[in-house]
Order: sequence, then structure tokens, then C-alpha cells
Amino acid sequence: MNRRSFLVGSLAAGGMAPALSRRTSAAQRRPAAPLASSALADSLQVLVFDTFGTVVDWRSSVSSEVEKLAREKGRKLDAIAFAEAWRANYGPSMNRVRTGELPWTKLDALHRMTLDGLLVRFNIEGLSEEEKRHLNRAWHRLRPWPDAPGGLTRLKKRYVLSPLSNGNLALLTNMAKFGGLPWDCILGSDVVRHYKPDKEMYLMPSEFFDLPPSAVMMVAAHAGDLDSAKQYGLRTAYVPRPLEYGPTPTRPLAPMPEAGRFDIIATDFNDLATQLGL
Amino acid sequence: MNRRSFLVGSLAAGGMAPALSRRTSAAQRRPAAPLASSALADSLQVLVFDTFGTVVDWRSSVSSEVEKLAREKGRKLDAIAFAEAWRANYGPSMNRVRTGELPWTKLDALHRMTLDGLLVRFNIEGLSEEEKRHLNRAWHRLRPWPDAPGGLTRLKKRYVLSPLSNGNLALLTNMAKFGGLPWDCILGSDVVRHYKPDKEMYLMPSEFFDLPPSAVMMVAAHAGDLDSAKQYGLRTAYVPRPLEYGPTPTRPLAPMPEAGRFDIIATDFNDLATQLGL
Repeated sequence: MNRRSFLVGSLAAGGMAPALSRRTSAAQRRPAAPLASSALADSLQVLVFDTFGTVVDWRSSVSSEVEKLAREKGRKLDAIAFAEAWRANYGPSMNRVRTGELPWTKLDALHRMTLDGLLVRFNIEGLSEEEKRHLNRAWHRLRPWPDAPGGLTRLKKRYVLSPLSNGNLALLTNMAKFGGLPWDCILGSDVVRHYKPDKEMYLMPSEFFDLPPSAVMMVAAHAGDLDSAKQYGLRTAYVPRPLEYGPTPTRPLAPMPEAGRFDIIATDFNDLATQLGL
Repeated sequence: MNRRSFLVGSLAAGGMAPALSRRTSAAQRRPAAPLASSALADSLQVLVFDTFGTVVDWRSSVSSEVEKLAREKGRKLDAIAFAEAWRANYGPSMNRVRTGELPWTKLDALHRMTLDGLLVRFNIEGLSEEEKRHLNRAWHRLRPWPDAPGGLTRLKKRYVLSPLSNGNLALLTNMAKFGGLPWDCILGSDVVRHYKPDKEMYLMPSEFFDLPPSAVMMVAAHAGDLDSAKQYGLRTAYVPRPLEYGPTPTRPLAPMPEAGRFDIIATDFNDLATQLGL
């Protein structure tokens, strides 16, 4: 089962807007959300984060780079469609590695394979190799959601923070420098040469830190990712990112997870910090 | 050949004090030291740092924790001798892994094996398992040399910074949180399951970042470590740490390396930043 099917599996009819609205009005009272038990907060040592969509806004970041390049080249194209098509091949391309069809291949190289096909499909010709390399590294220059740097800075006071992403270590490191993400270390997929939802990824933090998986909390905007983490014993926090596919998404938004499915549901990283007592 | 023998090999009769004094008086003129060529500075993308001795003062940090614990237990011991003996088994214990006598073993576990022997040798009895675990993690709480956090912060503006240390990822991550070391990522020995001077360690940064080794500079206070890095194509910067073995070391200080052996010789991390144009 690949991650893409996890994501698709988490989508259902009915938007998250009503649930979000309820949380927003609840947030106007104090406390903003029920506090996680202090026993839970105290039991955690490492927080790991899904990155694309959860920490950074890949869609607007990639499309604005595509838009800019197209303008420079005097071409017209639907940059949002380009970015979404690039992302849509993320799961299938990783699955070629997960099934053994391809040997271990970093996400940068998978992105490049997809890019080469998209340049043909979107009829963009004449890019130099340097321009293609630069465009491929748009995924190293993704902008964080507005609450991410500040929320992470609060969480970093007590916990070790790392991305736990299918991105490769260089991509995630460059992204952190670009966006000011204060990670303590970078657990890229190329460290274990596996992609989520392989268990090697979910167990990487506890193995490096000599901890039980229950001392690690996975934070993600995608319920399927958290279901996998939970299966391997990690704690889970769901943070919805209703703008991942833009203000008027063409696909149904994921519903809010049912109560009890995850340890914490937080409106954003600041709310997560508050719920953990920071 | 193990790392310890590298270090010992770099020690020779005659202290470094005269050479250091010459550099200090040179530093009173401007520029503080010859600038590295801007071509060199521009060719670099990643700076990696030996850690124990180069970034942090393991000797005073470990001995002060040992001292404090002994006082609490009402024991008298030579805490400096304890710390130096712990460190002295660093090379031999890693060599047991490098030669295959032991399977892959993290530095934390090697430190613990050495500690268990030292507690007997120094006649410290009655520590609880929790106290032993805490003491073993003194290596996660090493204090940086005074110039390290500020110098690294300057270098971080242009370069990706990482330790390249025989420490394991958790040890290096915790040390960075403890001492305020602003690494961009953590390349611990347990990522590649090799110890320096194995080539897998020196080539780890260029492989993760898809760079030629010459775009990576190794920074160390130990000439043997830099000789190994140079052998694999990395650039090299030597930063003397004449206080690594204290103000009145019982072993001869390493001489300053001869001109041309390394790309840069800097008095500390701030001087390194200056020489790289930052």
C-alpha cells in the first residue's frame, strides 16, 4: 500500500469546514483547546513532522516558481495544474522504489523524473540543464505555513524536533534554512533508504534516540500517515491544513478525524504547543 | 589504523604556543589572517566539524559532572583523570567495531562499556542504573568552546553546517540543544554505521548533498582527522584547541601544521568565518 493511497483513503465526501469552524469558535474561549494530559506531554521526548502539506505549503510555493519561470520564457501555462501534477506523481514514483521496480532513489531524483515528463506534457521547451536543476529544487524552497516557525520554536523548548518526511536529507535541510524551520536534526528518507509508510521510517526516531516508540509523537495533516505511525506505536497529533490544495480545492477536503483516533487534534502548531503545556 | 593513533601521530615534541603567539600578534593587525581566496569560499557549500575537542570542551565538562557526582556520593577521586581515562578508551573501543570484533555499536554504548570499567577502577560503587545512565550521558552535555556558537552562527549564513563526528545522532542532537550549536543537520556515525577514519564517514556529506567532496570542508583541531578528510577530496580547515587537555596538559601539544598542509588555519571559529569572508 503506498502513501498516496493512504491520502486518498483519508478523503471522504463532506468538507472539514464545519468542524474547523467549531474549533475556531471554541478557540475564542479559554483554554483554546482541551489540554493534552500532562502525563502524555511528559512521556514525549521527540516530535516528528510530516513536511509536505503539514509544515510547508508546497502548492503555492512550487506554482509560483513555475509561474515565474514560464513568464521569463514567455510561455503561458496553468502553474497550479503543473504543481498539482508534479505532486500527484509523488506517491506513484515512490511506489516504484517501495515495490523494488527501482533501486533506492532519492526524492530529488524522483521529482526530476516527473519534471522531465511534465515539461513535455506542458510543452515547455528549451530549458537549460541548469534551469531544470534549479526548477527541480523548487522543492527545497517551500514556504512554511505561517504558524510553523513560531510554533516549532515553542515546541523546541522541551522536545527534540525533526521532520519525518519522504524528502531526502539535503532537501529537508535546505528547506529549513530557506523557511527558518528550527529542527534539531533531519531524519530524511535517505537515512534509512525507505519511504513512508514503510515501518523503517516510523521507527527511525525511536531507534536513533533509544526510546520506545511511545516517546515519539508524529504530527501530520494526513490521517493515513498518522494511522501508520500509530500502528508502530507512536503517539499522534493531527493538524488540519485545509489550504493544502488552495482556497478553492477541486478535491474534497478530508473530514476531521473522529474523536479518539489520534492523541491530539490541534488547529495549528501554536495550538499544539499550547495543548502540550508550552 | 584507528583515530586515536591518528591523534597520537599528530603530536610531536615542541608545543604550539610559539606558533599561536605569532598568530595572536598577527591578529592585532588587520586583516586578522590571510583571507581564504574567494574562489575557495565560493566553491564550498557544506562545512562539517569534528566535535569532541574541536567544538566542545569534553574534558572540563565530563570532569565537572564526575566531580559533582563523587561529591554527592561522598567519594574523593581525580575527576580529571577519570575524564581523560574515559576519553582515552574512545579510539580503542571504536576500533573494536572498525575491525569487526564488535558488531555496529553506537558511541553511547561504547562510552557505557568504558564507564562500567572505570567505576570499578576508580572504586565508585553503589550507583543506581539511572545514575549510571545519567552519567554516561554527560557526553550529551558537553560545553562548547566560547567562540563556537557565535562563530557557527556566522558560518551558517552561507553554509550548511553539520557535525561530522563519531558521536551518534542522538548524542550530537542533545549536545546541540544543550550548548546552543546551530547545526543545520546532524550527520552522526550511526547514520552510516562507520567510525572515522572510515571513508564512509568522510564521504557522507557529499553523498547526502549530491556534491563533489571538494564542495565540503572539514573543520577539526586534529591534524590526523583532516589528513583523512583531505585524502577523500574534502577541503580542510585546522583550528587549534590548545586547551583540549587543559591549561597544563600532561601530554605534548600538537605543533601547528606546516603551511600548505590544509586549506585554512584559523585561530577559532570566528576567525574561520572572517577568513571565509563572513
